[in-house]
Order: sequence, then C-alpha cells, then structure tokens
Amino acid sequence: MTTEEMVTIGEIYLKAEPGSGSMVVLKENAEADHYFMMFVGDAEFAAIAREKGMIAPKRPLTYELYMSIMDHLAVEFQRVEITHMREDTYYAVVHFLADGSEHSADSRPSDAVALALNRKAPIMVSRSLFRRELTQEEVKEYEGIVKKVKF
Amino acid sequence: MTTEEMVTIGEIYLKAEPGSGSMVVLKENAEADHYFMMFVGDAEFAAIAREKGMIAPKRPLTYELYMSIMDHLAVEFQRVEITHMREDTYYAVVHFLADGSEHSADSRPSDAVALALNRKAPIMVSRSLFRRELTQEEVKEYEGIVKKVKF
Repeated sequence: MTTEEMVTIGEIYLKAEPGSGSMVVLKENAEADHYFMMFVGDAEFAAIAREKGMIAPKRPLTYELYMSIMDHLAVEFQRVEITHMREDTYYAVVHFLADGSEHSADSRPSDAVALALNRKAPIMVSRSLFRRELTQEEVKEYEGIVKKVKF
Repeated sequence: MTTEEMVTIGEIYLKAEPGSGSMVVLKENAEADHYFMMFVGDAEFAAIAREKGMIAPKRPLTYELYMSIMDHLAVEFQRVEITHMREDTYYAVVHFLADGSEHSADSRPSDAVALALNRKAPIMVSRSLFRRELTQEEVKEYEGIVKKVKF
C-alpha cells in the first residue's frame, strides 16, 4: 500500500437507520464531493458516536475498557489507515509505537476510526476507495438527512 | 468488595435466541446448582463465543484488535471480578499489572469475561450474585437447550 495515495480525513458523518444499518461516511473536508462510506455494526457505530459526543453510555464500551487499560501502558498511536477492499470488506491498519519500535495491527475500519478519534491520531483512507461522487443536489439531500459531526 | 466471597468460575454456557437476546451463564463447576446469568450485547456475545471456538469471524473483533496491540505492551492480567449489581446492571473490574504496579479498570462483565478467556486469567463472581437455584429437572431441561462449552 506504500504507493497508494492516502487522504487524511477531516470530516465524519454518522447515520443510523432502522432496517438499513448504520453508516459512517468519511470526507477529506466539508467541501469535498468524494467520500468514503462504510456500513458498521451497532457496537462499532456506538463507539464512534461515543467519541463524537453523540451518545453517552452509562457503562464503558468495549474499546473504552481497553483505552482505560492502555492509559497505564506505553503506547503511542501514530495513525490508522483504511487501505483496501477485498470481498466486499474494507481493511484497516492501526500503526503504533511500543517498546521503541513501530508496529501495526490488522483492524476493521470502524474499530480503527474509534481508536483514532479517542487517541487523536490521523485517519487516512486510500484515495482509490473514494468511489462515489455526489451531485450538488444529492449532497444537499444527503446532508439534510445525516447527523453531521465536525472534528 | 473485599469482604465479599468470590467464586472462581470453571464453566461457561452460552445461549443465543432470536428475540430473547444472548445469555452467558457462569458456574463454579458442572455440578453446581447455583449460577450467575447475564444478558449481553451481540458484539460482546460474539467475543465470548469466539474465545470458546464456537465462531470464527473473518475479521478481528474489537477486543481482538486490542489484544493484538497489547501483545506488544507490558501488561499482565491477574483476574477479572464481577462484583455487584446496581440498577439492573452488573459491574466488573479487570485487575492487571503494568509498569510495576497493580491497576484496575471498570468493565462490563461481558468484556471482562472475553478478556479473561483470551488471557487465561481467572474469572471470579461475587457469591451474592448467584441468586437462582435450579431443580435437577430444570438443570436437565436447560442443559438440553444451551450450547455447552467447557474450558
């Protein structure tokens, strides 16, 4: 993936609809007309919504348990990358420093995004995954529906 | 919780039923007629089922991402404890060693159980939470239904 151009994400949209599943949309910035979209599970959606301050669960979510454990451990998260798609599944990598060296961990994109938001690490997506372009009318319609969250 | 008698768990039962939710049952041993039961979310149920070898998801579950990160970090999990119930919610604590000292992290019991299974740490439950006793007939009926997993 080293030759792949990576786009740094500056904008996250979340959308949950009964029946159609939960969606996360990533964009380079608010003006960008290309975007990366993925469907995510309820728990992973909750983690991202939690990070965006949209929900406040009473008990720690799974990723929050591990974040609170890692508060006591020497680890620094450098960035997460959503790299490619295979068999209708997106793949991500979490890059981190530990014990003086660089490591990476295979991840689902949703988990990687929640982690990156929590640790204020950059989220990068391969430009080749930005497949769809909306017309201005579609963008307006879409943005009227989704719950927009800036960061 | 220091005065509370803790029971070390030796047996885990999992049950998933459409409509009624997913259940995890913990017992001291196969012969015990007292048990601890909790309802858990789909993702947390999947984590425990994954640890028991009942399912093999293609992509890392959330807890697996963090386990693979922690493989590079200096942390030792001592035990997890399900300590009490408040407002119909069970509470758990994960005890671990890091940086030369003992720490604990607040956790949902389901996350704590998945972590403990993964790291082969003892699972302990306050005896006061073992509320229900089954008759031998009920036990047989129940065990005929649930998918039993030893560890």
